[in-house]
Amino acid sequence: MKAEILAIGTEILLGDIVNTNSQYIAKRLADLGILVYHQSVVGDNPERLLEAYRLAFSRVDLVITSGGLGPTKDDLTKEIAFEYFGKQSVVDKASLKIIEKYFEDSGRTMGESNKKQAYFPVDAVILPNNNGTAPGCIIEENKKIIALLPGPPWEMKPMFEEAVVPYLQKFAQGVLVSKVLRVIGVGESTAAEMIEDILDNQTNPTVAPYAKAGEMTFRITAKANTQEEGIRLMKPMEDEIRSRLGSNIYGEGNETLESVLGEMLVNKRLTISTAESCTGGMVAATIINYPGISKAFVEGAVTYTNEAKIKRLGVKKETLDKYGAVSSEVAAEMAQGIADTSGTNIGISTTGTAGPDGGSEEKPVGLVYVGLCINGEVKTKRLKFSGNRQNIRERATMQLLDWVRRELL
Amino acid sequence: MKAEILAIGTEILLGDIVNTNSQYIAKRLADLGILVYHQSVVGDNPERLLEAYRLAFSRVDLVITSGGLGPTKDDLTKEIAFEYFGKQSVVDKASLKIIEKYFEDSGRTMGESNKKQAYFPVDAVILPNNNGTAPGCIIEENKKIIALLPGPPWEMKPMFEEAVVPYLQKFAQGVLVSKVLRVIGVGESTAAEMIEDILDNQTNPTVAPYAKAGEMTFRITAKANTQEEGIRLMKPMEDEIRSRLGSNIYGEGNETLESVLGEMLVNKRLTISTAESCTGGMVAATIINYPGISKAFVEGAVTYTNEAKIKRLGVKKETLDKYGAVSSEVAAEMAQGIADTSGTNIGISTTGTAGPDGGSEEKPVGLVYVGLCINGEVKTKRLKFSGNRQNIRERATMQLLDWVRRELL
Repeated sequence: MKAEILAIGTEILLGDIVNTNSQYIAKRLADLGILVYHQSVVGDNPERLLEAYRLAFSRVDLVITSGGLGPTKDDLTKEIAFEYFGKQSVVDKASLKIIEKYFEDSGRTMGESNKKQAYFPVDAVILPNNNGTAPGCIIEENKKIIALLPGPPWEMKPMFEEAVVPYLQKFAQGVLVSKVLRVIGVGESTAAEMIEDILDNQTNPTVAPYAKAGEMTFRITAKANTQEEGIRLMKPMEDEIRSRLGSNIYGEGNETLESVLGEMLVNKRLTISTAESCTGGMVAATIINYPGISKAFVEGAVTYTNEAKIKRLGVKKETLDKYGAVSSEVAAEMAQGIADTSGTNIGISTTGTAGPDGGSEEKPVGLVYVGLCINGEVKTKRLKFSGNRQNIRERATMQLLDWVRRELL
Repeated sequence: MKAEILAIGTEILLGDIVNTNSQYIAKRLADLGILVYHQSVVGDNPERLLEAYRLAFSRVDLVITSGGLGPTKDDLTKEIAFEYFGKQSVVDKASLKIIEKYFEDSGRTMGESNKKQAYFPVDAVILPNNNGTAPGCIIEENKKIIALLPGPPWEMKPMFEEAVVPYLQKFAQGVLVSKVLRVIGVGESTAAEMIEDILDNQTNPTVAPYAKAGEMTFRITAKANTQEEGIRLMKPMEDEIRSRLGSNIYGEGNETLESVLGEMLVNKRLTISTAESCTGGMVAATIINYPGISKAFVEGAVTYTNEAKIKRLGVKKETLDKYGAVSSEVAAEMAQGIADTSGTNIGISTTGTAGPDGGSEEKPVGLVYVGLCINGEVKTKRLKFSGNRQNIRERATMQLLDWVRRELL
């Protein structure tokens, strides 16, 4: 089966937002073995929208749209799709009830215009939206299928997984099975060089490197008749990559650095606390992304001022005076201080210059010291990043958490 | 003038990479007042590529492509474009020299296949690539213009700015001037209803609502001959929208909630501290995104356990026992506690159930209490969110910061 992906919204045409939805949908269709030869973007304009449906259905039998299901008069995706299929829409009471409840739960009043979001043809498959007000729908008529999904990615993705994937399983030809290995601590080119011969000689399975901020992934993909066959095909390549990259591979699939670290802490019955300066709570907030963390995380201190470092963590005034707040010595006292005062096995710390101002020749913007105290033993590391304030803080957070992970291996 | 943007590459069709090039080009064309009604993606396939050129030129006179200029046989963008325009290509010696030098400089040996990158029709405008091996080009024939740009964003963007923008200036019809107003605290549909008549009767300037996680924006756009005229045209509409939405508009352009709040705190010489449970450092980390915050932010406590709430913030054990950690009473004591212990004018707090587990009928997942202590006076708010753990924590963070902003107005 062939499909086309159509993203709808003036904000994409104007370049106000990046079209991440089409990428996500493309990826998942590839996983299902459904071919995509065209992706398009069109604005909230009735004529061009209708023309886009016509063109897409002249080439394929399945069209997946995202965007334009909102409550405003601008939002026309559904209305024009119903027109294309020659269908009347009526209010779907179940959908209306869910929308009403959504507003009730979030303590807001429902606008009259939100009712529009509950209108569907009687024979449409309605896709409930658990993360917003716009339900999606699937219409199937004369072997032409359209799936209409909301624009916000946090609404579109769960709806795609929960409702569209099961619906499409019947059309999936063979399967594309894939597995993502997550790498941290080595750069993209270094990691790629470590498996250069594998990258050069791939057929089935294939492996694709992809760099993201602060980490990278290798996606292994096998084409097979069954899921099991695909997994079997991928195994030797995965083993080989794992043996070359070693502990630089921290996880797989949707695992995150914090979920891997969180599980390690819980399994080893270790407790942790954080003392942050430049990252300002980001390290704690990242650790707490992991839902099971309450067994391990005790507390965090965001000690932005020198006074707070002294008062909360027992950092010595002399240390601050002699070495400055951005120093290995202060990072060490912070890590030790938070571990001591919170009574945890592990205490970690950050202190640095995230910019854009405040850098000096000796302590440039991007310089971050991190500290790690494990059962009384204290170590520190000097890190240097480029990028903006946000990048520097995010990378410092990731590298610190990766350091803790490696120490616990 | 109208243009279309065409991204070329199997890796985009498969969803392996996000198509950021089209967003960038779209944004810059909008800045030039060049209209874009369609964006498309097609793979490195000769028939579909030729068809894509035909379709695009049936609708517009300017097509801008990115991708497919590489040295491999897969890369066909240029070859098919030359075919479409009926042009022969010959080696361009200047380009070849630059490519050879590029390899020399980076200490690599040039592959035979890279020569292909130096072939162009004699009347093409060649666009030098200062960041890679693939030169781009512009072909203009019978009022149809195509600009072929490389795929890697770090090559495409500089080339676009250095060569394409100057070339397109002659076609720029007036300018599109736009301004973004940032709204928080009202839902998309409610906000749209508040300016429904404006949305219904817009011509020039236009206004477009757009919802993001926890906030929304109105983009006002005016078409004018000059920047100044555009700003003048937008003014009455902006004034009207501002008068309707009042304090729900927190900022404009690239301002963020934290930058607006941070500036208010610094200007009013107020200090702030944070006490977080479910948000786990996210409130502090968000406040600290604002670079100038060190004048106002003193410290934050991430008190995830009951013990930490008692020890660090002086929350009473009886309060925790009687009302539970997720309660208005505990939020109040947390806010007061952090303000007292850190000696700040303002103390803010969060305590809630971010899920996915841990919810009960009385205290469901998504329930968050926030507390605010200003100069000794304590208030709390009950918030209820849907969505996943991350969404709940992010929305709670935004709503709390917005509450502080409103209190300081």
